[in-house]
Amino acid sequence: MSVDDATLHRMAQKLRRLCLESTAEAGSGHPTSCMSCADLVSVLFFHEMRFDPRDPTGKDADIFVLSKGHAAPILWAVLKEAGCIQDDLNTLRRYDSRLEGHPTPRVPWVRVATGSLGQGICAAAGMSWARKLGKSGGRVYVLLGDGEAAEGSVWEAAEFAAFYKLDNLCAIIDVNRLGQSGPTMYQHDLQPYEARLRGFGWEVAVVDGHDVAAVREAFARARAAAGKPFAVLARTLKGKGVSFLEDKEGWHGKPVKKGEELQKAVAELGDTSVTIAVEPRHYPSPTPQPRKEPSLRPEYEIGQEVATREAYGTALARLARSCPQVVATDGDTKNSTFSEKFKEVAPERFADAYIAEQNMVGAALGMSTEGTIPFASTFACFMTRAYDFIRMASYSQPSHLVLCGSHAGISIGEDGPSQMALEDLAMMRAITGATVLYPSEAVSAERLVETAARTPGIVYIRTTRPKTKVLYGNDEPFPVGGSKTLRSSAKDAVTIVAAGITVPEALKAHEALGKEGIAARVIDLYSVKPVDTATLVRAAEETHAIVTVEDHSVCGGLGEAVLSAVGGRARVEVLGVRETPRSGKADELMKAHGIDADGIVKAVRKLTTHGQDRH
Amino acid sequence: MSVDDATLHRMAQKLRRLCLESTAEAGSGHPTSCMSCADLVSVLFFHEMRFDPRDPTGKDADIFVLSKGHAAPILWAVLKEAGCIQDDLNTLRRYDSRLEGHPTPRVPWVRVATGSLGQGICAAAGMSWARKLGKSGGRVYVLLGDGEAAEGSVWEAAEFAAFYKLDNLCAIIDVNRLGQSGPTMYQHDLQPYEARLRGFGWEVAVVDGHDVAAVREAFARARAAAGKPFAVLARTLKGKGVSFLEDKEGWHGKPVKKGEELQKAVAELGDTSVTIAVEPRHYPSPTPQPRKEPSLRPEYEIGQEVATREAYGTALARLARSCPQVVATDGDTKNSTFSEKFKEVAPERFADAYIAEQNMVGAALGMSTEGTIPFASTFACFMTRAYDFIRMASYSQPSHLVLCGSHAGISIGEDGPSQMALEDLAMMRAITGATVLYPSEAVSAERLVETAARTPGIVYIRTTRPKTKVLYGNDEPFPVGGSKTLRSSAKDAVTIVAAGITVPEALKAHEALGKEGIAARVIDLYSVKPVDTATLVRAAEETHAIVTVEDHSVCGGLGEAVLSAVGGRARVEVLGVRETPRSGKADELMKAHGIDADGIVKAVRKLTTHGQDRH
Repeated sequence: MSVDDATLHRMAQKLRRLCLESTAEAGSGHPTSCMSCADLVSVLFFHEMRFDPRDPTGKDADIFVLSKGHAAPILWAVLKEAGCIQDDLNTLRRYDSRLEGHPTPRVPWVRVATGSLGQGICAAAGMSWARKLGKSGGRVYVLLGDGEAAEGSVWEAAEFAAFYKLDNLCAIIDVNRLGQSGPTMYQHDLQPYEARLRGFGWEVAVVDGHDVAAVREAFARARAAAGKPFAVLARTLKGKGVSFLEDKEGWHGKPVKKGEELQKAVAELGDTSVTIAVEPRHYPSPTPQPRKEPSLRPEYEIGQEVATREAYGTALARLARSCPQVVATDGDTKNSTFSEKFKEVAPERFADAYIAEQNMVGAALGMSTEGTIPFASTFACFMTRAYDFIRMASYSQPSHLVLCGSHAGISIGEDGPSQMALEDLAMMRAITGATVLYPSEAVSAERLVETAARTPGIVYIRTTRPKTKVLYGNDEPFPVGGSKTLRSSAKDAVTIVAAGITVPEALKAHEALGKEGIAARVIDLYSVKPVDTATLVRAAEETHAIVTVEDHSVCGGLGEAVLSAVGGRARVEVLGVRETPRSGKADELMKAHGIDADGIVKAVRKLTTHGQDRH
Repeated sequence: MSVDDATLHRMAQKLRRLCLESTAEAGSGHPTSCMSCADLVSVLFFHEMRFDPRDPTGKDADIFVLSKGHAAPILWAVLKEAGCIQDDLNTLRRYDSRLEGHPTPRVPWVRVATGSLGQGICAAAGMSWARKLGKSGGRVYVLLGDGEAAEGSVWEAAEFAAFYKLDNLCAIIDVNRLGQSGPTMYQHDLQPYEARLRGFGWEVAVVDGHDVAAVREAFARARAAAGKPFAVLARTLKGKGVSFLEDKEGWHGKPVKKGEELQKAVAELGDTSVTIAVEPRHYPSPTPQPRKEPSLRPEYEIGQEVATREAYGTALARLARSCPQVVATDGDTKNSTFSEKFKEVAPERFADAYIAEQNMVGAALGMSTEGTIPFASTFACFMTRAYDFIRMASYSQPSHLVLCGSHAGISIGEDGPSQMALEDLAMMRAITGATVLYPSEAVSAERLVETAARTPGIVYIRTTRPKTKVLYGNDEPFPVGGSKTLRSSAKDAVTIVAAGITVPEALKAHEALGKEGIAARVIDLYSVKPVDTATLVRAAEETHAIVTVEDHSVCGGLGEAVLSAVGGRARVEVLGVRETPRSGKADELMKAHGIDADGIVKAVRKLTTHGQDRH
């Protein structure tokens, strides 16, 4: 395909017109942010990129990621002009349209949802890494804004891409000078961006982003670069092409008015009567990678003492051996999360993400779009660092994305509160569609790794630092949404619901209560989301009183999951962490915060006495 | 104070010994990460920094922030040697000691808790900004690790510090080559760090971090630098001083064994018999800033339509005028959150944080340690970006830190899911000690801004995009932990608990239900944490059925807060967002997700019918 510069320019003007029209029709949206990058997008889609408009997911084609997601209208416009989609552009932002205000994968050409800035580039880095792994020749292009470059995650992606020599990655920064609420830090001074990118190990071309020939030339340089990722720094004007919008403040996220204002704007764009037929182009198809159904069998003995985090690593290593589509990454904690066991077996499928959790999760999401099953591990407390990425990942509807947070809760002991995840269950439960798993011992840990690898979407596994005793036989199944009733009798006067490190405490409490003549049911609620509502409701109706106990904040975790499930069918007492913890021994801390066996016994006594008063 | 190089070196050796001993005694900790920076710390505390060992909070003294928090043992050791604290160092990490595994403000010399990497520097940047504002001459020193420099937040702080020309800030990077689980990306190649820092607008000195004279000289250069922040890049060896630890892998976070191993290590350090008396030194005291009790009075009329986000901005502007200790920052959304109204009144007290939410929150925390009341605003969904910072801020026990998340929930409409906060209530409720406020209309919005400014610790205010009708008189008080019962009768068969945008829907539902003969109580639960347990329990006992309705995930938000409060005393039906939302009109979305008046009416019908079956 060879399209001349004048035609590419005219297509850019047409894209500008389409964005002005669709946002005017919607009455909202970001036309000026589209207009600054129209020439870049025109050259990319109608000159530079190789793809087949009939195939949105081709591994042998180039990928485009719109990291500056608020420019969605130009993505929809260019996809339509390139023959990729047939939607009516003027349905933009309507409830009955898949052309949303920011890109989502309701349109299959969108691999990852964007709209929270600084994330598309992390996903693009992960795609580029996965393409290198899969020996696919297709390149990855990602378009960012200049305001977006203030996000630290952009620099995390930049260091990751340079470290892994991702020369199949090309980032384009649309430096249009104006952010949402005013000028950017550096406005049209491109030198700081160039110096930083070079400092981060990138090759850089600086161009006038409205000079089609210069942009074309920059992309040629990017394609030729070897051993380094490439950035095209494009000086542009927001609202380019329309005098009353161009480089003007106060026009961010604002459409022009339908009617006279729109007509005036469109008139300034000149003749936009152009169509360009995209010829399907692709790279040699990579050899399909073998895929195996994730499957493993733990090898423990009942009573053996193993930390769930170590069993997690053992299970990952089993998957590394048996399941070629599994990849892994870690934020420089691999010797603590035990993800290093995966690296030992399959180093080429392990990406060290260093201490940069946002990019770790974003890159893992990108890897998943290339057909892998990524496992990303770090301390559970540091998963909070990536919360916006996890939130956005849910809108990307990934086929697979497994996150493992280790060292959960106060039971980590001496390292102190900064290392104690007490919010991760709340944070993960609030993610629409996420699955939250929390093994109490080694067999369930390994089985839940298998379950996670088989479960679509985002799965979170919470592991624990101290060792716990193996409770289950190696063949015990652990499906999503299940639970294990560990103690039960017809006389149960209370149900203790525990998960993870509190399960052994619940069992001790059961024994102590038995000696006092109080029969307690004990449930290991390893699936924190979704919960086993049927079992919980039955327990509520049969025992009338429930004590939940978790090594987590009392807000948003296991206790409230149980409260939601039983919805008022029993009195529920929630035990968890209510006060700021401190350094100390695990057992001292669990006692001090009332989540050990003693704490459970006391809560049960209080609740059952109260219950007797009531009945 | 003039201490010769040999004495400073010997003090460094002593600090190394103290760290080896205290971690050996504790049986855990990070001695080798302390040993790499011992010379840097010795020169800082005994030569460079001006402070009074009797006064941990002096505004006229230099500040030290240990961003690489795992080196806590050397902080405790140097504070002891400098005469700042008298604690027994060998109580490190014990439950009865304030010398925790990572720094916390239980020791008053610690301004902000660290231990999640890349955060201390953001706080330090905020302190430096606040010191410029307060015209204090004291400088801010922050010590980072090289592994830590992979965190994007470090670069957010770097750009903020350069943009605001914080030449009172000096960052020291202890480049010891080894991370937790292996070598860092660049090991002992200091060039990438230098190029980046210069690219981000910093002055840089590169030194041998074990050459006391060179380090001293670098700090002199830093002090002389004008108009730019300064970085000392120090090449060091992890475990420096002990042959079997020095530059060796496998020794991260690992103490030597008490007894022979410790003796051998200590012996290698040579003669450590040194004490250095710190002479109190300080800068001219800055003029004390006037402080006023935060106070404001809204000026609305009942029924007037105003968005809570706009009322928030109006209230901020009132505080800008009346309360000189209030400062504000925003992540380039000030025209949407309406924090720009503050900037219009008091531009010098407004710090544009650009699109870098982690640093925004970290810097705000740092500002608070200088006696200000910071308000940090952005879209509520982007507060998730700063979750790890909010979590860590809670351990810093700030006097004040107010966060405002605007555009909460699906009611933002057309922008789509990326801009819809559906997790923020869950995330904030899980933070120990945090206060969560959610106004439904303009008077409560303004009053809650006043309440927030008066409330110690972390306060989160959630505001809404669409306009809502004013419900309350201008003098109505809105204390933390309160609620407003808007509709109530002796015949109430159900209680509807709403907050924010769902309050008007609850009132509409009340009316519709009244026509069907169902009396419904309506509670505006503006204080989501802590909740008004007494009012909720009374409602549970009087009406036996509760419907909660929130523009948020059903997990971890308003509904579960109510479930927790009533603990099984009533049947509770939680209405909220359960499915992935999409672009559309606010009312279409609220209807589709069942959180409008119709959704409430249906839920009430179901629950009350069910209730009749039961009774």
